[in-house]
Amino acid sequence: MDTAAEPGATGTARRPGPVTRIRVTQVTGGSVRDRRDDLATEEPLEIRLTAGGESRTVAITMRTPGADFELAAGFLHGEGIVRPGDIAAIDYCTDEDLKPEERYNTVTVRLRLPALPDISALERHFLTSSACGVCGAASLDALHDRCAPPAARPPVEVGAEVLYGLPDLLREAQGVFGRTGGLHAAGLFTAEGTPVGVREDVGRHNAVDKLVGWALLGDRLPLDRHVLLVSGRASYEIMQKAMAAGVQIVCAVSAPSSLAVDLAREFGMTLVGFLREERFNIYAGAERVRTGNG
Amino acid sequence: MDTAAEPGATGTARRPGPVTRIRVTQVTGGSVRDRRDDLATEEPLEIRLTAGGESRTVAITMRTPGADFELAAGFLHGEGIVRPGDIAAIDYCTDEDLKPEERYNTVTVRLRLPALPDISALERHFLTSSACGVCGAASLDALHDRCAPPAARPPVEVGAEVLYGLPDLLREAQGVFGRTGGLHAAGLFTAEGTPVGVREDVGRHNAVDKLVGWALLGDRLPLDRHVLLVSGRASYEIMQKAMAAGVQIVCAVSAPSSLAVDLAREFGMTLVGFLREERFNIYAGAERVRTGNG
Repeated sequence: MDTAAEPGATGTARRPGPVTRIRVTQVTGGSVRDRRDDLATEEPLEIRLTAGGESRTVAITMRTPGADFELAAGFLHGEGIVRPGDIAAIDYCTDEDLKPEERYNTVTVRLRLPALPDISALERHFLTSSACGVCGAASLDALHDRCAPPAARPPVEVGAEVLYGLPDLLREAQGVFGRTGGLHAAGLFTAEGTPVGVREDVGRHNAVDKLVGWALLGDRLPLDRHVLLVSGRASYEIMQKAMAAGVQIVCAVSAPSSLAVDLAREFGMTLVGFLREERFNIYAGAERVRTGNG
Repeated sequence: MDTAAEPGATGTARRPGPVTRIRVTQVTGGSVRDRRDDLATEEPLEIRLTAGGESRTVAITMRTPGADFELAAGFLHGEGIVRPGDIAAIDYCTDEDLKPEERYNTVTVRLRLPALPDISALERHFLTSSACGVCGAASLDALHDRCAPPAARPPVEVGAEVLYGLPDLLREAQGVFGRTGGLHAAGLFTAEGTPVGVREDVGRHNAVDKLVGWALLGDRLPLDRHVLLVSGRASYEIMQKAMAAGVQIVCAVSAPSSLAVDLAREFGMTLVGFLREERFNIYAGAERVRTGNG
């Protein structure tokens, strides 16, 4: 399984790591003591696009350092800005004037395109009409325009017994989480429950972007035979990123939102929620889950 | 305590409520059954500013409907776009052409200003230099420019026994959470532990924005004698919103990020994490916490 080997805790290293060590006052009942503690590092990442001699910042997001190139690639793919094959190279900013800690917070994505792609959709985000007024249904309509589902998706099924085992597999693969308790995780599994990759971040969306970016850069898209598990809730954005990557089965350890369910039903995806302790709820696409009972 | 009385589940009502009722397949061990389930509603909210005859969309955010005016006010305050007293009125979009479900997803904030305020900071977000390169320290520097801390803040202290009790008080006040399991919460308490207000949302930042917006619209800012508790993790953005509201003591049920701790230490705030089951860690500003032990 790919778990994104990353540099360790920041110390004298110039490049920020996923873990920051600090001193903390621990209060338990009546006892107070000073001790070392590990925190999930949070630093901004600037994502720049370069094409046809032009360059432009398209996003700045707070993230946990590590898998930064994957984060950039996955973010751009999820937003419909790049397709597989568009990316020529990804690098950190090489400007010598920068302080070392800044150099690893800017990623430049060079595209094999004659000009910068249209990013107006990104700027307008979910703004789907020029009149005032937006709604969840309009957000789904806009997705239809952007992400025509492939004509044929391979049939894929997953057994309830396989799903029961996924949260433990995700936790086992989470290297940083055990130490800091502060990270969201996204894991990718085969339909037989074999872990394929896991990524972590202070931001849930970032963890999914890192995973999709890893698949994109490794020429593994679409992920239409895989199961995606997120450690927290399933929101509209998680579902939208999963759909863009071709994922047909999404599971969440916690609850889905209403719009996540709407999206799954509208686009024929399977959405499982509250997957923990040998139980779960199916919110959409129950035909892909073998429960051994019907 | 103010708990934002909101409309109930969506049904025939035109205005979306915080809870959406759906049918779901529940799988437990070998048993499979169909049942009703409540989800946290997620719908986009467009925030528009109007001043001096001009109008402009400044943000679209996914949120749980309810306390929308407070969300808009709190968001604009947290981003440094409006100050107390700037807001003349807040309304839903009244365009008759809109579908009913769209009408309650757009909020217009009318300002008592001759022209629209500068929102370039919002567009550039954390982009603090024109050269490439951003870092957490630069984000904190930018905050210094924008949010000079008040010359004198009143001394405020909270006892460990009071902190122990806050998570239960927050859960008790969370009307929706019990039903959907899908919402983040932010609660405001006096230093003696009396609940003052609580807000919920699918987005953690939104819950804080709603709480601060409630205080802003009720002329209660700054919140420099209160304790803020968030149900999840403490990130940079949570701390930044709290600081803008004058909050000196922030507590999180889960872990803080590294940059949240940096911000708290840099700006002299108290940050408590992992507040659960009669224990917690103090990451910054321990002098405001009475532990009865030192």
